[in-house]
Amino acid sequence: MPSYAAPARDMHFILHDLLKVSQSDVPGYDELDPDFTSAVIEEAGKLASEVLAPLNTVGDRQGCTLENGVVRTPEGFKAAFDQVRDGGWTALDCDPDYGGQGLPYLMSTAVGEMFSSANMAFNMYQGLTHGAYNAIHAHGSDDQKQTYLPKMVSCEWTGTMNLTEPHCGTDLGLIRTKAEPQDDGTYRISGQKIWISSGEHDMADNIIHLVLAKIPGGPDGVKGISLFIVPKFMVGDDGSLGARNAVTCGGLEEKMGIHGNATCVMNYDGATGFLVGEKHAGLRAMFTMMNEARVGVGLQGFAQAETAYQNACAFARERLQGRAVSGAQNPDGPADPIIVHPDVRRNLMDQKAFVEGARAFTYWGAAMIDRAHRCDDAAADGLISLMTPVIKGFLTDEGFDATVRAQQTLGGSGFTREWGLEQFVRDTRITMIYEGTNGVQALDLVGRKLATDNGKHVMAFFEMVKSFIKENEGNEALKTDFLDPLKAASKDLQAAGTFFMQHGMKNPDDALAGSYDFMHLFGHVCLGLMWAKMARAAHETLEAGADDPAFYETKLATGRHYMARRLPATALHLARINAGGNTVMALDAEQF
Amino acid sequence: MPSYAAPARDMHFILHDLLKVSQSDVPGYDELDPDFTSAVIEEAGKLASEVLAPLNTVGDRQGCTLENGVVRTPEGFKAAFDQVRDGGWTALDCDPDYGGQGLPYLMSTAVGEMFSSANMAFNMYQGLTHGAYNAIHAHGSDDQKQTYLPKMVSCEWTGTMNLTEPHCGTDLGLIRTKAEPQDDGTYRISGQKIWISSGEHDMADNIIHLVLAKIPGGPDGVKGISLFIVPKFMVGDDGSLGARNAVTCGGLEEKMGIHGNATCVMNYDGATGFLVGEKHAGLRAMFTMMNEARVGVGLQGFAQAETAYQNACAFARERLQGRAVSGAQNPDGPADPIIVHPDVRRNLMDQKAFVEGARAFTYWGAAMIDRAHRCDDAAADGLISLMTPVIKGFLTDEGFDATVRAQQTLGGSGFTREWGLEQFVRDTRITMIYEGTNGVQALDLVGRKLATDNGKHVMAFFEMVKSFIKENEGNEALKTDFLDPLKAASKDLQAAGTFFMQHGMKNPDDALAGSYDFMHLFGHVCLGLMWAKMARAAHETLEAGADDPAFYETKLATGRHYMARRLPATALHLARINAGGNTVMALDAEQF
Repeated sequence: MPSYAAPARDMHFILHDLLKVSQSDVPGYDELDPDFTSAVIEEAGKLASEVLAPLNTVGDRQGCTLENGVVRTPEGFKAAFDQVRDGGWTALDCDPDYGGQGLPYLMSTAVGEMFSSANMAFNMYQGLTHGAYNAIHAHGSDDQKQTYLPKMVSCEWTGTMNLTEPHCGTDLGLIRTKAEPQDDGTYRISGQKIWISSGEHDMADNIIHLVLAKIPGGPDGVKGISLFIVPKFMVGDDGSLGARNAVTCGGLEEKMGIHGNATCVMNYDGATGFLVGEKHAGLRAMFTMMNEARVGVGLQGFAQAETAYQNACAFARERLQGRAVSGAQNPDGPADPIIVHPDVRRNLMDQKAFVEGARAFTYWGAAMIDRAHRCDDAAADGLISLMTPVIKGFLTDEGFDATVRAQQTLGGSGFTREWGLEQFVRDTRITMIYEGTNGVQALDLVGRKLATDNGKHVMAFFEMVKSFIKENEGNEALKTDFLDPLKAASKDLQAAGTFFMQHGMKNPDDALAGSYDFMHLFGHVCLGLMWAKMARAAHETLEAGADDPAFYETKLATGRHYMARRLPATALHLARINAGGNTVMALDAEQF
Repeated sequence: MPSYAAPARDMHFILHDLLKVSQSDVPGYDELDPDFTSAVIEEAGKLASEVLAPLNTVGDRQGCTLENGVVRTPEGFKAAFDQVRDGGWTALDCDPDYGGQGLPYLMSTAVGEMFSSANMAFNMYQGLTHGAYNAIHAHGSDDQKQTYLPKMVSCEWTGTMNLTEPHCGTDLGLIRTKAEPQDDGTYRISGQKIWISSGEHDMADNIIHLVLAKIPGGPDGVKGISLFIVPKFMVGDDGSLGARNAVTCGGLEEKMGIHGNATCVMNYDGATGFLVGEKHAGLRAMFTMMNEARVGVGLQGFAQAETAYQNACAFARERLQGRAVSGAQNPDGPADPIIVHPDVRRNLMDQKAFVEGARAFTYWGAAMIDRAHRCDDAAADGLISLMTPVIKGFLTDEGFDATVRAQQTLGGSGFTREWGLEQFVRDTRITMIYEGTNGVQALDLVGRKLATDNGKHVMAFFEMVKSFIKENEGNEALKTDFLDPLKAASKDLQAAGTFFMQHGMKNPDDALAGSYDFMHLFGHVCLGLMWAKMARAAHETLEAGADDPAFYETKLATGRHYMARRLPATALHLARINAGGNTVMALDAEQF
């Protein structure tokens, strides 16, 4: 069975050497001194390793079951959820007005990483609740906030997001679920929603469904969508639970992975719903949930890669096969551990360089979200909005790929259920699909985000890279290994942007045919930038005299690997983008 | 549930337009006229679509079960195996002296593709029998051949390969299974073998295990390995089945995929074994099986990608979501089919261009095997030996990737078991691992095959590419789209070869750190060459006046996509190779 240990040292490095959080001017960051963050990481890490990780295999094997409308979660999930609740982990970055701890989103990101590494399916029950909390917090009435948020902050009640219907996923304009206004101001919700994560389960007293539906007579398409709260149990004025609402779980999806999370068909048979925000403004409200959810999914991608990598390393250090080409390294044993072989190392280094780069990128993004919210900083908001599809799409594609690589390190053992690596592959696969497939992320990036505010935010990103390079150009320790490759990669990104500007208006197919490559090109430049920043931070700490120089030397070596071996992918992505849409659009549908 | 239709038109193109088989001087190829090959493909295709494909999901859901030492295959497998046997499909390319039909290996490759597309787990029962047949045919005594081969040709008896033990996979020198000589000339075999595909099942009267074991007192390491026949039931002089031999299935492996194939722990408790060939020469004999098996695994990789692609296309043509950016294409419907979207097409074109290129490459390799065997052609033998790790490693990595892409086309539906795409991903994953992990293939390629006969065979490959380009350089229809990209890619491959020559001896880690990239670089050049050859063939047929010009135009468009969007990967692989081993080897084992 696989195991998990929180990468506390690396988290500390990112928070304090790279992001220098306690020197930040973002309100609340002054609390984040090393003692505090270490204590949080240690406690959450213990819970992740000792409670959540052992349940990961259980969840996969048992899955969820539906009987007479009741969904049972795997053995041990309920007790573990109580522990998570009791520790206050669900309230970390929530509003103190509703019982939250008011910590920065950055801290809940670090905790979320550990929980997602240990047991992704389990952590989704809380994750979706947090998304629903956000939507109500941003768009609900005061009454609604008072009624629902305190219980959702504590996860006594959990939440869901109901978008998809059998005939519509990405294209929400096709939604058929109906919301008929009633005399008492409520709505009667009727329709079927599918793929509803955590839609029904036995771990909370109530479930608060957020449901997209159309009020008859409203505008066609996405402009006619409204958002509703549909509680599983009606809530009385005093907060007590009343009658069962007419919403039921009609079935559980059989899936490739995340068996521990109940993916439900939800039937709304004239259920009572409460409008959130304005009529016909549901999509915007839903996107409040969506954007944070997308960052959270990117996080899942690398979090799974982290735990897969840890287990691959353990195997590679123990498994004895063959001899090092440079001479036996374990001469008294029957063979050397396979970690001596260059190709095994290449594979592990690729994983390590990705995971650490992705962690830096995601935490940096979380800090940007904090800056946007806590400082009302429009530039930060624009930048993180631009980056959201990159975080989601690039980190989940690469995260999945990393779990496949980790599985490969184990050879035949990787294919067996016993070792658990194959579960990481199956679980991580969903991250490339849900909250908008990665193709949709690429479309969002190229078709929408690039041009937002006349391209101001992408220009700001280029400026950020440029000024980083400029600031450090005299630094010989960084130049060859970090700054030069970053400059080349950034040039590729700009060239791709130019291609889109020249071709996008004339022939949108040319731009969209390259959208997926652009998302990856952008992702590589972001990770390249993070690695260059981490290298600078590592050099600075080493020069100032670090207690554990080996950590920083390892960091630099890992960064060099990314810059030398992963970052050059930007040129390939640019070549594909420059190839345009001709070959992509050449065939008629029936010629495929 | 997914469906499968044999790609008969494309197979015809490869056999007759590209390879021009009936004009070949290879003995037996004169039989392969279009009428004959079409009839074979049609019949096998029908069996694949109508019998094997519907059992693919059944096999996955039910898996194999072990009870009191008896392994039961999924419902319907036995009847289907009877149909395969009755149709003579198992005997296709076997020696007529033992009941085979004596057809070229090329034909059994085409049939094998269809069966592997339809039901990979099922087809392994026959596939491993064929491998065991090959080893006995090449290394067995006349008696052994008479005793075992006729029943194995018909698959009344099936065969297995027993290499792996719990503590040794790749490093066979560590084998502990013992073979003690008995007075009657037989051997007493004791030990445990794991991951034995088709090791025990209920579909054949007898199972002929080929087992690697060590005769006590022999040399250490791989030089002390011998090969033994260990039948499940002893065979009398008259061919009748006698006593049960002391070999039993001790357990079934729980795996990520190929549930329809029984992956067994095999316990040898003093079983009677018969030496095949010379003492201590077992590894060489096993490699006779291995080499063909590796080509067969490469074939599985793209065969699974073919069926996944077919189902992705069907979904993309039917699923209505969103509108084409260039204007509605299904204005009377609620939305356009998703195949109108550039990113969906990009994904499908990538799959299509891979599968068709891989098919050409594998069939070309099969024809090379025929030439080597039927003409005793050492150059052909050297070339296919060089190519074997490329076919295995590159086509399974890319084949797996293609199944993941096909799954992505379906969005959320791709993650559910109902649509079946996720099974293709899980099943195909094993192809990157078994018969030597792809890392081991890369090592074989760079560490062994490149230097074989002083590099003669790789030089012959370069020469082949060069002369193809030279022959066609006046052909304007090919120049920009095919010859120029092929030339550039081939240059990258040669540069990588030069890097290895300059660094390999001095620092083998430098070469081996790039071995995996070299395998992929080589694979891309091979597919690029195939696409250039196919483009020439398509142009020739079009100029001569084709009955179905649309097929050839589609072929050319697909080839252009590969050359423009996939082949440029060679530059990235070269960049990584040129980066050498420094970053790969930088860390100590405990720093990972």
